Amino acid sequence: MLKNDPLEQWDRDNFFHASTHLAMHARGETPTRVISGAKGVHIQDRDGNQFLDAFAGLYCVNVGYGHPEIADAIAAQAKELAYYHSYVGHGTEASITLSKMIMDRAPDHMSKVYFGLSGSDANETNIKLIWYYNNILGRPEKKKIISRWRGYHGSGLMTGSLTGLELFHKKFDLPLAQVIHTEAPYYFRRTDQSMTEEQFSAHCAVELEAQIEREGADTIAAFIGEPVLGTGGIVPPPAGYWAAIQAVLDKHDILLVADEVVTGFGRLGTMFGSEYYGMKPDLITIAKGLTSAYAPLSGSIVSDKMWKVLEQGADENGPIGHGWTYSAHPICAAAGVANLKLIDDLNLVANAGRMGTYLNAAMRDALGDHVNMGEIRGDGLLCGVELVKNQDTKQAFEAADKICPTIVGAMAEQGVIARAMPQGDIIGFAPPFCISEAEIDKVVDVTKKAITQVLG
Amino acid sequence: MLKNDPLEQWDRDNFFHASTHLAMHARGETPTRVISGAKGVHIQDRDGNQFLDAFAGLYCVNVGYGHPEIADAIAAQAKELAYYHSYVGHGTEASITLSKMIMDRAPDHMSKVYFGLSGSDANETNIKLIWYYNNILGRPEKKKIISRWRGYHGSGLMTGSLTGLELFHKKFDLPLAQVIHTEAPYYFRRTDQSMTEEQFSAHCAVELEAQIEREGADTIAAFIGEPVLGTGGIVPPPAGYWAAIQAVLDKHDILLVADEVVTGFGRLGTMFGSEYYGMKPDLITIAKGLTSAYAPLSGSIVSDKMWKVLEQGADENGPIGHGWTYSAHPICAAAGVANLKLIDDLNLVANAGRMGTYLNAAMRDALGDHVNMGEIRGDGLLCGVELVKNQDTKQAFEAADKICPTIVGAMAEQGVIARAMPQGDIIGFAPPFCISEAEIDKVVDVTKKAITQVLG
Ligand SMILES: Cc1ncc(COP(=O)(O)O)c(C=O)c1O
Ligand SMILES: Cc1ncc(COP(=O)(O)O)c(C=O)c1O
Repeated sequence: MLKNDPLEQWDRDNFFHASTHLAMHARGETPTRVISGAKGVHIQDRDGNQFLDAFAGLYCVNVGYGHPEIADAIAAQAKELAYYHSYVGHGTEASITLSKMIMDRAPDHMSKVYFGLSGSDANETNIKLIWYYNNILGRPEKKKIISRWRGYHGSGLMTGSLTGLELFHKKFDLPLAQVIHTEAPYYFRRTDQSMTEEQFSAHCAVELEAQIEREGADTIAAFIGEPVLGTGGIVPPPAGYWAAIQAVLDKHDILLVADEVVTGFGRLGTMFGSEYYGMKPDLITIAKGLTSAYAPLSGSIVSDKMWKVLEQGADENGPIGHGWTYSAHPICAAAGVANLKLIDDLNLVANAGRMGTYLNAAMRDALGDHVNMGEIRGDGLLCGVELVKNQDTKQAFEAADKICPTIVGAMAEQGVIARAMPQGDIIGFAPPFCISEAEIDKVVDVTKKAITQVLG
Repeated sequence: MLKNDPLEQWDRDNFFHASTHLAMHARGETPTRVISGAKGVHIQDRDGNQFLDAFAGLYCVNVGYGHPEIADAIAAQAKELAYYHSYVGHGTEASITLSKMIMDRAPDHMSKVYFGLSGSDANETNIKLIWYYNNILGRPEKKKIISRWRGYHGSGLMTGSLTGLELFHKKFDLPLAQVIHTEAPYYFRRTDQSMTEEQFSAHCAVELEAQIEREGADTIAAFIGEPVLGTGGIVPPPAGYWAAIQAVLDKHDILLVADEVVTGFGRLGTMFGSEYYGMKPDLITIAKGLTSAYAPLSGSIVSDKMWKVLEQGADENGPIGHGWTYSAHPICAAAGVANLKLIDDLNLVANAGRMGTYLNAAMRDALGDHVNMGEIRGDGLLCGVELVKNQDTKQAFEAADKICPTIVGAMAEQGVIARAMPQGDIIGFAPPFCISEAEIDKVVDVTKKAITQVLG
């Protein structure tokens, strides 16, 4: 580490950070945060502060930080062969092995995996494949993609359009054409509070079908959804939701994209979220958990049904016009292979399920009767805590009060990182799968203290 | 390496390759190509074949393969801290240092760098920033992006729209709205053969201005171009081109995006292509040469003029709604730092310039008078060899004859990799900067032999 270093000034002068208040950061009105090391569920900054990271980076460091097995695999690959491309049938031992490991873990009806770098670009790939598929099938009008309000599918132009959150649309002229949104399966905020979960799921399916019929089913190509809404508020689907939605899609010959960037590779205690909820996707988006973020890698897993049409397309039109220079990058693939092995060796999928149950129960025990508690919800190792100004009316706090950012700030001062979700008064938890009960107890304890500190 | 390994079958069963004939590959009708190691300008496959890679992967391994300095930097970073995110002002020593190193090398009027993973996603970021910029300035109609036919800017939905090549549009319903194309500065294929280069440049500028006036300048936000057309055929601009274009853009208050994914960090013998041609861009796209492909990393360099407006946007609207989970990934940043140091230490920018001059001259000497030679062209360490069926009429070969793929195949049999560019009868060369004169002699010699073998 540089001592007496000029890093802070360099940072403010040169670095355009993601999702940051650019002006305040450049002017030096926000703290400089330089992370210097990490181990297990803990990270540390260069000033020596330690934090328990209960959000696993951006819910991606699933195996936890500092595993030498993955670092060694990266180092070995960097030494052996840092790069070659995967165009025109090229591969490396790591990328081919990883393709096999992914397909061994994916649902049986899936066929092949295309590699990208980010969850966003994997969803770009998905839309390209969906449009290509319907062109090959001679259905040039069947192109619209239905996403959900509060879905998160990326930050690009088309993927930010799929995303159903205001922050990602406002001032960017999104959503683009061909993307439409349907109701979020957000039971807590349902309009008709008298509905049961099952009734609300049926209502979402009816609304979806009405929308499809309004648009014309022959104009709708696909429906994309996260098994559990993530960035939109950590919202598991209400009972019966996916079965009801799937029936509508099947009836109208509409493809299902399961965006498993957060849920893929174990976060729900099953290898995929599709398994957990009985979804039968035609495409599965993977990223974060594929490498536990040790290197940037994503993927689009394609079903047998779609792959057959892609093959027909190649026979009719030649090689597919799609590729990123860094598709199936060897170092990233090596990280993926080591990461998936580690998940098996340490039995982390089962652990995520067990610890998730513990986390959600502990959070309910500690905070269930707080006067501002709206809902504590989660499946697997995901937990969302939604606060309300008024329990009876479910009235939200004023956005300007920044309740959740303040609570999360107070938690950080006590050494625990959680995330103030971008829309609503929701605190999110998604720790690494290796978290222990004692560490969960600390997270819950600090959450309770910070909420009490801010709200009484 | 696995011996007697099942890699080939795994590959065909599971791996969806970029830019590949999916059906032929899956059926086993194309060779399996597993690359296992590389050093300097040479790569080798697992069957022990060696190739001199005269295209540097996908013109990206600029420093050459197998440099321990970069591999060691990656290994050290993987051990110290494989991942933390760069949202909300977070950084690491590597990412902050790299932001400073990039801005030290960028033209003086540039301000900050945003990090992505691929050249494509950096261009996505650019369009988001351009739209945001004009929204903040209260010009909501000024949004269209002009790109050139034969430009290459990525393979996504919007970036594939910017790309002006048929392969990337056909069957994908591209280009999307808001993207329009203008004439390629392709002097060899100009309609009016009587024009000088200067006249043709003036003609391109006049055509551009007419198009701007037809659309309405208040609807045009930006113009994007590679300093040298790359994937579209390796076509340096005709004399005076960029000055003529820049004048039109300035007159109509249209931003210039210099896509320097290929030319950035030295390929033309200058740090940036913008320097080489006297362009004054508002955004510069960087990727490949930033890490020499040792890890996936890209960037959008933003000018002072745009940054000021982005700051205003933050003051008015809060944090920017843009981010990739893997923006400024520590391992990729560490690779970038080591790579830029190595370029300096080995004086590779100057070497690229010198070897580029040598390559282009040697190619002209060897092949200039071949009866099928259309044009040998290039600046810096880029060289395009365009063949014609008939020299007098410049008639092209039939696409079905696959002349260039056949020549490139014959070259590979003789141990040299060049690239059959996707549109036209053009063979592309873009070797690592560390290539020697003797290695260039071999490339030229094999090119000549293969052309003679195929065309007589
Ligand atoms: C469900 C989901 N899809 C896609 C993405 C986008 O991934 P990335 O940030 O790697 O582009 C995210 C990121 O949080 C996500 O949660
Ligand atoms: C000029 C240019 N821009 C953008 C890209 C896209 O980069 P990537 O393949 O990393 O998405 C390329 C790739 O070849 C390129 O040559």
